[in-house]
Amino acid sequence: MMNQGTWDQMRVVQYGCGKMGRVIMRYLTEKGARIVGAIDRDESLAGKDIGELMGTGRTGVQVRTDADTVLDNCAPDIAVLALQSYLTDMHKPILECVTRGINVITTAEELLFSWPTSPEMTANLDALCREHGCTVVGSGMQDPYWVHFPALMLGGAHRVSQVEGEVSYNVEDYGIALAKAHGVGLTKAEFERTIAQSFDVPSYVVNSNEALCQRMGWSVAQTRQQALPVIAQEDTECKTLGQTVKKGRVIGMSAKVTTITRQGVVVEIQCIGKVYAPGEGDLCDFTVRGEPDMRFSLQAPDTVAHTCAAIVNRIPDVLRAPAGYITVDQLPPARFQSYPMLLDMNEE
Amino acid sequence: MMNQGTWDQMRVVQYGCGKMGRVIMRYLTEKGARIVGAIDRDESLAGKDIGELMGTGRTGVQVRTDADTVLDNCAPDIAVLALQSYLTDMHKPILECVTRGINVITTAEELLFSWPTSPEMTANLDALCREHGCTVVGSGMQDPYWVHFPALMLGGAHRVSQVEGEVSYNVEDYGIALAKAHGVGLTKAEFERTIAQSFDVPSYVVNSNEALCQRMGWSVAQTRQQALPVIAQEDTECKTLGQTVKKGRVIGMSAKVTTITRQGVVVEIQCIGKVYAPGEGDLCDFTVRGEPDMRFSLQAPDTVAHTCAAIVNRIPDVLRAPAGYITVDQLPPARFQSYPMLLDMNEE
Repeated sequence: MMNQGTWDQMRVVQYGCGKMGRVIMRYLTEKGARIVGAIDRDESLAGKDIGELMGTGRTGVQVRTDADTVLDNCAPDIAVLALQSYLTDMHKPILECVTRGINVITTAEELLFSWPTSPEMTANLDALCREHGCTVVGSGMQDPYWVHFPALMLGGAHRVSQVEGEVSYNVEDYGIALAKAHGVGLTKAEFERTIAQSFDVPSYVVNSNEALCQRMGWSVAQTRQQALPVIAQEDTECKTLGQTVKKGRVIGMSAKVTTITRQGVVVEIQCIGKVYAPGEGDLCDFTVRGEPDMRFSLQAPDTVAHTCAAIVNRIPDVLRAPAGYITVDQLPPARFQSYPMLLDMNEE
Repeated sequence: MMNQGTWDQMRVVQYGCGKMGRVIMRYLTEKGARIVGAIDRDESLAGKDIGELMGTGRTGVQVRTDADTVLDNCAPDIAVLALQSYLTDMHKPILECVTRGINVITTAEELLFSWPTSPEMTANLDALCREHGCTVVGSGMQDPYWVHFPALMLGGAHRVSQVEGEVSYNVEDYGIALAKAHGVGLTKAEFERTIAQSFDVPSYVVNSNEALCQRMGWSVAQTRQQALPVIAQEDTECKTLGQTVKKGRVIGMSAKVTTITRQGVVVEIQCIGKVYAPGEGDLCDFTVRGEPDMRFSLQAPDTVAHTCAAIVNRIPDVLRAPAGYITVDQLPPARFQSYPMLLDMNEE
């Protein structure tokens, strides 16, 4: 349905105008889409021109705090929700869109594949989407790089018994809510009592592993999660929380998720979210045990840029998808969306 | 059309029972497919049980040299051709299958995307496939790793100006024809006069770059190829040719292919095929200049295993495809085909 040219006709509401929302708005604008509305609950952003937030010229579109008014009046093709990580926090803003029949794509990590972690809310959301004829998709860098990347690489394998991975991201890139969810600043004992004990805070890898297994046609028999604290080896400044995390305290979480399938394949991904030391970069490394063994990686991924680009590149698939809560394993890998910039070349 | 279970019903003819053909037959057999015929022109293989060639038990299927008789009598769903690299050499065996309406998948590198390098023969082949209601596809490790891998990784990028790559393979793994095509044993001057000057021997990267550009929706404006000799730094044994290549002579070819697109993106891949020194491994590394910059790789790919696995994993797509010469950019990434081995797990 969408081709490159139709980015011109695309009307987008940005819901959440923080760090990620601003990058997404710039990417969308550079592709030629029109940001027809911008919502943020933060009163201090109210009335700001989105061009100011994006670091580009004035656009005439201002951030508003009243979601209902914006959504009722701007006739968007899709709303991009860059707010929080878990469905329980995202339910209200998603329903504001879905009950109006507005398609949603969101950075919320649980929404990548929320069936195992929030089955009832997910079923409810799926039913509402069908009722209102719209689609909700969760994407972000996990979509191309934690789900479709290993799935594609296995297209050149004969046998597989284990998929291992190590992914990481800098807690500093995602705001206060995420830093707190990762236990930054806690003592090890506090971490063990709260985050380590609680499966109410599932790692995003629980969701991405399930999406990967679903993509591969593997049925999940069992999922185990170990939340291990990552301890500061020296005093580490956390800008997001505005505090120095003392040596010996928690600077993040390593979530090791082991997903055992009925096909005998084990998927075990360690997801390390922590406050980086200077010079440290993200990981996105996979190892496959099988025939043949494989090692593949995306080196030092720019997680913010990839998440925002993955969201934008997914939009045509969302608009093409049937109504419902659609997970990325049901979609082909997202295609790079280039706004046409034809080169005028004189061939010799 | 195909699901995992139907591997049991699959009837395959193996055409070319050399190094690659034997691995492919084993993979197919382990997936549950039936090898119903085996063809090789090598008289010394005539009458050999394919189980002997695969290193497994006896199967009752013998290699035969008379392709016509085998193809007329074994009613295959598909023929797997593991013979030579270029369409001009593959035309006859492919037509033997196509004129009988037999689907073909082949390791022949040019067939990955032969439109730019052999336009007339490709058009002729495409027309014959349509006339006889069957499909021809060229695959191998370039399919997942040189075409779909960079295409998928760009799904998390906002802008791209250049895709660079370095891929390599060991000439020793592919038999005499390929070693000669890479100039092994020549002097540098002989290489310059023959291989370097001749675009009649296009690098396989010309084909894979075009497939990648097609996949991305980029139209190719210009392709340049530089064939650079790789010089032996010390005397190097080439088992394939049964000779020692003296220091200073050619042990392979680095083909640098620069593909310039009208969208302004340049794809420049260096493909190094040479006789490896002990301990040397394959490369499959990519760098993207854009927003963000990216580096990704498959480390030390097992090129033979990947090529054979990619061929087998592609078979369901070939059987599902419309009649014609179909290139891998027109297909989704190949999916890992697992023969069901359900795990009997008692959940707690």
